[in-house]
Amino acid sequence: MAPGVSNEKKSEDEQPSKENFIHLCNPHLEKMQEDILYHFALGTGTHDLPALFGDVKFVCVGGSPSRMKAFITYIAGELGLGSPGSEHPNICAGTDRYAMYKVGPVLSVSHGMGIPSISIMLHELIKLLHHAKCSNVTIIRIGTSGGIGLEPGSVVITRKSVDATFKPQFEQVILGKSVIRSTDLDEQLAKELMQCSKEINEFNTVIGNTMCTLDFYEGQGRLDGAICLYTKEEKLQYLREAFESGVRNIEMESSVFAAMCNLSGVKAAVVCVTLLDRLKGDQISSSHDVLVEYQQRPQKLVGYFIKKRLGKV
Amino acid sequence: MAPGVSNEKKSEDEQPSKENFIHLCNPHLEKMQEDILYHFALGTGTHDLPALFGDVKFVCVGGSPSRMKAFITYIAGELGLGSPGSEHPNICAGTDRYAMYKVGPVLSVSHGMGIPSISIMLHELIKLLHHAKCSNVTIIRIGTSGGIGLEPGSVVITRKSVDATFKPQFEQVILGKSVIRSTDLDEQLAKELMQCSKEINEFNTVIGNTMCTLDFYEGQGRLDGAICLYTKEEKLQYLREAFESGVRNIEMESSVFAAMCNLSGVKAAVVCVTLLDRLKGDQISSSHDVLVEYQQRPQKLVGYFIKKRLGKV
Repeated sequence: MAPGVSNEKKSEDEQPSKENFIHLCNPHLEKMQEDILYHFALGTGTHDLPALFGDVKFVCVGGSPSRMKAFITYIAGELGLGSPGSEHPNICAGTDRYAMYKVGPVLSVSHGMGIPSISIMLHELIKLLHHAKCSNVTIIRIGTSGGIGLEPGSVVITRKSVDATFKPQFEQVILGKSVIRSTDLDEQLAKELMQCSKEINEFNTVIGNTMCTLDFYEGQGRLDGAICLYTKEEKLQYLREAFESGVRNIEMESSVFAAMCNLSGVKAAVVCVTLLDRLKGDQISSSHDVLVEYQQRPQKLVGYFIKKRLGKV
Repeated sequence: MAPGVSNEKKSEDEQPSKENFIHLCNPHLEKMQEDILYHFALGTGTHDLPALFGDVKFVCVGGSPSRMKAFITYIAGELGLGSPGSEHPNICAGTDRYAMYKVGPVLSVSHGMGIPSISIMLHELIKLLHHAKCSNVTIIRIGTSGGIGLEPGSVVITRKSVDATFKPQFEQVILGKSVIRSTDLDEQLAKELMQCSKEINEFNTVIGNTMCTLDFYEGQGRLDGAICLYTKEEKLQYLREAFESGVRNIEMESSVFAAMCNLSGVKAAVVCVTLLDRLKGDQISSSHDVLVEYQQRPQKLVGYFIKKRLGKV
């Protein structure tokens, strides 16, 4: 199921530097002379991808372009890379589909909202990392979400990404037929991130299941969309069932993210802050300043994790 | 199925000015004191929506923010509104989720890529138009797509939006249960747009079915994604079956767009240019200039349609 993930447990006599490259599950790509990464406005014929990206070890992805720009500025400061206040250019400036920034071994990429949008980005990102001959890459999604039964501002590290019926799977239609894929995430990585949060000790963090939906309003049981044909009681019953099955937050990208990273042999994690408790309401009504501070929490946690991995803590 | 759409055929003695308001299929909204349109950074408590948007008659939506900005500049010029070269401010400048521009009766809004992304935008757009007391609104999606059996650069006006099994329906999961909705589009509006294209007489335009998928790579039978577990022959067979069922192009937003406009009683159309013929390849390899010109075709067609409706042709 997850080729390339198998070097988790090294035996003593294995070389400690054994490299884990990106696994491309696509025999057709070998035959292509050139690969145009259309939605990044990059390509193997126009860009020296190994020179540009070969040293990438950490990829952080999130919905909003401006948040991913803020993240690269933050991580540059934390790692002492680049002069303070310097601008980090958008590597995908040739398109407005996604934004991409890099500093040292860290790549920061926006993915828009929803499974289809992050899926396009991940196809092209995985190919980019492969073409660039990157190895031992960790990908972390840092995002926002609705919480269930948690104080707003809590951070959830995803144990399993589940669908709207609480099953840990991602279903997609390929050539008109349904295909089910596993949404497992790396357990060790989740624990390592949890340990980082304990060391920072600044906000509540839990490991829990994340429900991934195709819609923000009806798909998440909200009462405040343009269309809503169910009652408040039916909504609350659904959210309570989700909670009882282990769901602690709801977002819109984690299932395909887990499925694609799995198939490509890349260790992956999802770290989302909760902006509200869905058992108490639907509208995101906290002040702008409070929301901005909440959104910095996954960045802070993942920033600390990267520093620790690089021996800078 | 489509409340509010019933004033299509007016009898002679009906008032010709009868107004068709937006229908909100949500009884809960009446009870809310304030409605925060979170992903627009707008709200009924902070903005005078009737004053800002009450005169809107045409809403054009498309994936890319910069393309929707280019459209408002184009339509301002065509309608002789605003001074040439003047900047049109982004009404949603408080967020980077969507961009929104307005000139006279025309609103231009970006929706990102994929069903979930356009669905969030449409929920908030439909509520915005309702709160603003808009009437007789026409919504048109102008976008890009992959063509099937058409010369690249051809424009497709959607007859029916179909899913990946060629059924004219949109399936979504609400409170964990599958719900099927109709994806009918306004037939008269499609014909009116086709007539406009004949009058412009600058590019090939057809009325055909549009397949709406949740994925750009595997979901559309591409061979060039990071993951592909089928053969070229299987891909071509699928695309040929799509063509035989009446599909002329493939994109990622039309089904939920049709379903939501239907339920809200808004006349809607989808006008997409095809960037390539998928029977001949997968990669979008035309030059930047050629692609830019292709992308202007739906804008030109819809711009002409709006001018004609306003009696300016």
